[in-house]
This record gives sequence, C-alpha cells and structure tokens, in this order.
Amino acid sequence: MFDNRYGTGQSTLDGLLRATNILLAGKTLVVCGYGWCGKGLASRAKGMGAHVIVTEVDPIKALEAVMEGFAVMSLEKAAPRADIVITVTGNLNVVNRHLRRLKDGCILANSGHYNAEINLALLEELSAKRRVVREFVEEFTLADGRKLYLLAEGRLLNLVAGEGHPAAVMDMSFANQALAVEWVAKNHQMLAPAVYVLPREIDEEIARLKLKAMGVSIDQLDEEQQAYLASW
Amino acid sequence: MFDNRYGTGQSTLDGLLRATNILLAGKTLVVCGYGWCGKGLASRAKGMGAHVIVTEVDPIKALEAVMEGFAVMSLEKAAPRADIVITVTGNLNVVNRHLRRLKDGCILANSGHYNAEINLALLEELSAKRRVVREFVEEFTLADGRKLYLLAEGRLLNLVAGEGHPAAVMDMSFANQALAVEWVAKNHQMLAPAVYVLPREIDEEIARLKLKAMGVSIDQLDEEQQAYLASW
Amino acid sequence: MFDNRYGTGQSTLDGLLRATNILLAGKTLVVCGYGWCGKGLASRAKGMGAHVIVTEVDPIKALEAVMEGFAVMSLEKAAPRADIVITVTGNLNVVNRHLRRLKDGCILANSGHYNAEINLALLEELSAKRRVVREFVEEFTLADGRKLYLLAEGRLLNLVAGEGHPAAVMDMSFANQALAVEWVAKNHQMLAPAVYVLPREIDEEIARLKLKAMGVSIDQLDEEQQAYLASW
Amino acid sequence: MFDNRYGTGQSTLDGLLRATNILLAGKTLVVCGYGWCGKGLASRAKGMGAHVIVTEVDPIKALEAVMEGFAVMSLEKAAPRADIVITVTGNLNVVNRHLRRLKDGCILANSGHYNAEINLALLEELSAKRRVVREFVEEFTLADGRKLYLLAEGRLLNLVAGEGHPAAVMDMSFANQALAVEWVAKNHQMLAPAVYVLPREIDEEIARLKLKAMGVSIDQLDEEQQAYLASW
Repeated sequence: MFDNRYGTGQSTLDGLLRATNILLAGKTLVVCGYGWCGKGLASRAKGMGAHVIVTEVDPIKALEAVMEGFAVMSLEKAAPRADIVITVTGNLNVVNRHLRRLKDGCILANSGHYNAEINLALLEELSAKRRVVREFVEEFTLADGRKLYLLAEGRLLNLVAGEGHPAAVMDMSFANQALAVEWVAKNHQMLAPAVYVLPREIDEEIARLKLKAMGVSIDQLDEEQQAYLASW
Repeated sequence: MFDNRYGTGQSTLDGLLRATNILLAGKTLVVCGYGWCGKGLASRAKGMGAHVIVTEVDPIKALEAVMEGFAVMSLEKAAPRADIVITVTGNLNVVNRHLRRLKDGCILANSGHYNAEINLALLEELSAKRRVVREFVEEFTLADGRKLYLLAEGRLLNLVAGEGHPAAVMDMSFANQALAVEWVAKNHQMLAPAVYVLPREIDEEIARLKLKAMGVSIDQLDEEQQAYLASW
Repeated sequence: MFDNRYGTGQSTLDGLLRATNILLAGKTLVVCGYGWCGKGLASRAKGMGAHVIVTEVDPIKALEAVMEGFAVMSLEKAAPRADIVITVTGNLNVVNRHLRRLKDGCILANSGHYNAEINLALLEELSAKRRVVREFVEEFTLADGRKLYLLAEGRLLNLVAGEGHPAAVMDMSFANQALAVEWVAKNHQMLAPAVYVLPREIDEEIARLKLKAMGVSIDQLDEEQQAYLASW
Repeated sequence: MFDNRYGTGQSTLDGLLRATNILLAGKTLVVCGYGWCGKGLASRAKGMGAHVIVTEVDPIKALEAVMEGFAVMSLEKAAPRADIVITVTGNLNVVNRHLRRLKDGCILANSGHYNAEINLALLEELSAKRRVVREFVEEFTLADGRKLYLLAEGRLLNLVAGEGHPAAVMDMSFANQALAVEWVAKNHQMLAPAVYVLPREIDEEIARLKLKAMGVSIDQLDEEQQAYLASW
C-alpha cells in the first residue's frame, strides 16, 4: 500500500519530469487504472496542477475515483483530450486502438508493469517515422502527420527515467520482506506448503518503527477502551 | 480579498448544502467567473470532491484556472455536463441561452450579485410548470420534460439559504471599514473629493491584529534585511 | 466505504457549519480517528482550508495520515493547538483528561458514535457554569475561566445539527442492504447460521448502476486481457 | 505571475527530487516566503503529500497562507520541526541563527534568489566537517554531531539540479518580453525615460494565444453585458 501508492505516485511524476521537463500545471493527464499505483499517481498529478482523467474497468474503483473528484470516462472518450497518458494497470494492451484517437503531441508512458501496457506493435504499425528526440523520449510520426511521444520505450518510467522509489518508502517494503523471512524461519514447522497472508502484527510493527523514526507520537488505547472495543 | 475568497467560497457551499443536502463528491459543478469569489468557490468545491469546471470571459483569469488544474471551457460546452451551475460574475444573464442545454436535474444558483446573473425571464418562458419542492428550491419543468432546480430565486445563495459570511471573515471587512473612516476623519483636510485607495498600512495592521488573535507568530525583517530590500 | 467516507466527511462539516457558522479556513481542526469516517472528514476539512491534525491509536492508519500530509500527533500534544476537535473513532472517552489542555474557545463535537466519545461527565465536573448559546451549541465555562463549546450534546453532529447523509450516498447503502436481503432469500438453504461477507458481485453491481445513473462510462476488459489476468 | 507561481513551484520540487530522491509524502517542508514563488511551491509540495509550514514577514501574505490551511509560524519555531527548508524570499540571511535549531538530517535549499538566502558563512562556521555525498548535495557535520544537507551550494535549486522552468511557462515570459519590446518600438516617441507598467492588453493577448494553443475555449461578453459592466 505505501510502496505503490506513495512510491509510484511520486516517482512516476519524477520520471516524467526528468524525461520531458514539461509543465504539469494545466495539462490533461489520463491515468489508466485506479489501484494503489493509480490512486497515488492521480492524487499527486492533481496536486501538481494537472487536470486528471481516470479510466478503469472495475466499477467500484471507478466510483471511488468519481467521488474523489476526478473525471472518469472510457479511454475511448478520454484519448482525444489527453496531453499525457500513463498506464498503471498490470494488464496488457490497455492503450490499444485508442492510439488512433490521441491528439498531436500526446505523451505516452507506463508505470505499472512490463512494456506491455501500451500496444507498441500497433504504435509502430501506425507510424511513418520514428526518432529519439531526447533521452528516454521517442517521437513517432503517424501517417496523418500527428506526433506521439513514447517515454522509456514503454518500460517502467519511474525506474528508467527516474531513480525508482525513494529509500524512505522502500525501507518499509524491505522491512516487510525481512520480517516475513524471519517469521517463516520461526514458524515453518507449523506451515504446510501454501500461500500465506502475513500476520497484521508485522505490518503494525513496521508502521510503529517508521513513525518512531519520523518522530511522530500516537495515542494508546487505555484499559477501559480496550475492554469496550473487545465487547463488540 | 479575504471576504470574497474565503467567505464566499465557504458560505456558498454552506447555502447549497442547507438548501439541497446533495452530495458534492462526484458532482460536476460549473463555476461561472474566476474572480476572488470564483477562486474561493472553485477551490472549496474541489476540496469537497466535486469535479469543477470554470467558465470565464477574461483570458488571464481563465489561464489561471487552467493552471490550477480546473477544466475550463465555454458555458456552451460546460452546460450539458453540469450537475450544478453557480454564477459569481457580477454581470447579468450569464446563464442565458445555455438553459436550453442543461441536463435533467441540474441545479442553478447565484452567489455573485443580484438575481440578474441567471436569465430568470427566459427560464420562466421555457418552463411549462414550476413549483417549490423544498425551502429555497424551485423546480422548473421545461416543455421537453427536463427539470431544472433554481435555488433561492436566483438571489445570493449564501445570504438566503445560509447565514452569510462567518464572523471570522467579516471582522476583517468591518475593521477595514472602521479604520477607513478613522483615516478619512484624520486626513480629510488634505483630501479633495475623489475616490482614494486606502493606504496599505491599514490592511497590514488588520492582518497583524488578526494573526495575533489567532495566535500566529511571524518573522520580522532585521536591519540588514531592511537595508538590503531598500537597496533594490 | 462510500457511506462513511463520503457521507460522514461532508455531513459532519455541514453539521458543524449549521451549528456554528464558523470559518473553517485557517482553523486548526483535530480529527480523532483515521478510519473511513476520519479519512473523509480530514480530507474534506483540508479541502475547506482548515489545518488538520490527525490522532490515531493504530500505527498503520497513523502512517497513512502522515503520508497524506496531515500533522499526526498524540491528542495530548494536539489539544492545546485545537480550535475544533471532532471524534470519529467508535470508542469511548477519546477526549478525556485532554479537556484540561484545550484552549479557550475550543469547539468539541462527535461524529463517530454515541455520545460517549467525549467524556461528558468530566467536562461537567470541570465546569463552573454551562449555558446554551445557540441551537446545538452549549458553552461550558471552566473554573479557570476558559470556555469550551460542546455541539449537539456530544451526539452525532451530522444527524443532530445537519440532515445526515445525502440521499446520493445512502442510496448505495440501502441498495446494499436490499440486495443482501435478496441474496439471503435466494441462498438461505445453503447457509448455516453465521456471519457472512457479502459477495463482491453485489458491490460491483451497485457501483455499476450508480455510475450509469451518473452518466459515467468505464472500460471493459477484452478477451485477451481477461485471459492475461487469469494467467497470473 | 505564471512564471514564478507555476514555474518555480514545479521546478523547485523537480530539482529537490533530482538532487536527493527523497520521498516528499509525510515530510515537513518549510517554505520561507509566500510571494508568487512561495505560493506555487507551498501548493505543489502540499499536493505531493508534504506537511507544509510557511514563514513570512508580511502579515497580509502570512494570513493568506493561514487561510489556505498552511501552518504558519516564525522560522524560530519551525526550524526544529523541519525535514526540509527552502527559501524563496529575495532577501538575504533568511536562514540564519536558525541553523542552530535545525534537526539532524535537515535539508537546506534556496530557490528564490542568489546564494545569499541561507547564511553560508555561519553554516561553515558551525561545521566541523563537510563533504559532498551526492551530486548537488553537501553534508555539513556540526560540532554536536548533527548533519545538515545543503543543496546546490545554496544557489537556485531549480536551475542547478533541475532544468529550470518548463518551456510551457517560459513561452509566456518570453512572449511578454518580445511584445514589450515591440510596444516600446512603436510608442517610443510618446515615452519619456522612466519605468512603465506594460499595458494589460499585452498580458491578455498572451493569455488568449496560450489558451488557443492549449485548445481551451472561453466565453465572450455580449453587448448587453459590456454595457452593463461599463455602467458601474
């Protein structure tokens, strides 16, 4: 949750700025996918002054995006309005036939997954000419003269053009992995081979350590309150 | 600046909620006019989860709204998307022929000026039926069956359906007026009959008193810094 | 999720404004509890220009609040800074000994639960005088002269001083309950007496209907994409 | 207005991320100065999830920051809380004796002016050791063991560690300068040597061209509305 939401949200914009140095304020930025990565990215892009459109396939997530004030629509509708499209879905060919509807100058990037979220074969097929115009930025000139800009070959933008997630968010992910290994080592005799959800106590312990490192104090339930909650 | 931006922004939404009890989250709210009132209203509506569209006639203000991340377009284009339209322009007949393009259920209100910002004569002319459905809410049924909801007879929504500006913002406006009268009383012998801009010192003094009342401390320029600024 | 986050967030502020007509901009508002209600309330209060402090007992939720940019601290520390304290925890005596540390003029309200979140017995014990100063607002004068303002007798502010949740959010809650009853009626022969989590399909169907009613279109997975997701 | 607010706001954060790759979410970032640069920087940092504190010397600007929901206090008070301090004041020695109060690990940068806003002589004097730990990041170890990190030698962070303002905001600044020269060339016979404010028409024309280039349509006053406005 922290890694994808707060890490990807920031590092994707960081990668976008390093690759292009465009002004986000006033741009229409389409975020494909409203999972943790998409939530983080949409929120940060809005915070930088972009006009954010969200596309989704899951109605619950789509409704959440609507309730947060984002414009939500099909990518078919969103494509002609987009200055920038960023995919964070974990699926393939999310930007597909929509390539035909993008406007001149549109920037395409992926921050979710492998270089499969944008249909690169179709992009190539539609293009009369392609050339690298700046590090991490490839210009595709379509048959009708429109130019599209693909960042980082459609690979993870935050890793290719940025430095990936900040240490201050990866520390929690790594702590999680380290404590998971410790937990398995201590409990393996009771564990049949299977997929397990880690105990919530591990996440809580990490959050507690992180807050302490940040100098943040929180409250404690007193006995009366613990008893009250337990009585439900 | 404080009165219109922070007062009208909040009190207009307050009036809207008292009149209708609608959920702002996810609604498309069109703000006509991006002066201080419009800036305040757009910012607060966004903060409540509405999807805000701004309309303007002044290109500089329109560009400011774009850069803040708002959707900006002509009212002609915005009208069919609107769940709510609020005028804060200080002009008349801002919502005019656009009445024909509003969608079923759209709410109309004014928070800028007299009941002249929405063309009420045209609204009446287009309507086959009208009735009050709730205090401050009048339903107009158009010939084609669409229903539009006019709040507070098109008069200032924050004054009619709300309680007007909070004391905590009017105190500054009244302090301004009181100190202006004092200033005129002290300086009238040097003043020919004309319109004067009040000295900035009065605004600064009010801000200083207000910060003090709020318990907020600020910095002071030291001598070296004053000298440096004066050297420009 | 929608009801508590988007309903309570808005309706609590609505109740606060109806009860007090204070200006939220620039006020320090302490939100006790960062569950769905607290998340909604903190986000909306920030959107109205308040400076929001969050208190929590759960380190994971506390860290989430920190990452969203809220000030997070113990209520002990937050109390002397608060202009307004609102509890949304579902626990009792959340505002307790902290009553001694609140500053003159502080407003106290609850929007989470019964009138048990603020220790009213202690408040009374500390007070030399009490009187109703406005509908829903009771002034407690402490022995040292400080005045505290309790809203709606510590009962749910949004229900007492406001109109509760907007219809546009309760429709989803009621649809959920109606479809749950239908589901039980259809499946009761396979159900032993126990607590069941409703199938996600019901939530999805409600979200789908809601989006349709709002005129929002979303994307559909094509066959290739479905196969790809299923292959994980 | 556009250049400083939207340019500096974004490019300063861009420079900060390129220099440090820190996570902004959850950090306490102190913005010294709330002019156009400070407004832009504070707004964008908040949008990235930082907890923003503003310091000012002008009470009107300080009050504006308060009303926008920022914590406002003297730098004396803010210093011990800061994870990052960025100066955007146009003055000198803004971060001065406060260096003694900064916490271990604090990052210092300037984005307002020359390398005079942070008292570098004092920083050096207080330090027992200094070394470059990463491009654009110099670590100062104070006598008591605390470490402070100075970015870009205290020079303009957005120019040194970033690429300066995006073209999409500088185009307006350059258009302004070009049209100013044209205006002087056309009108020089009527101009005595002095400082002139450019006619508002030039700014409006640039905004109009910019909106057109962005594909944004705005409204026009009709004759009735022009007459009405003129009648005031």
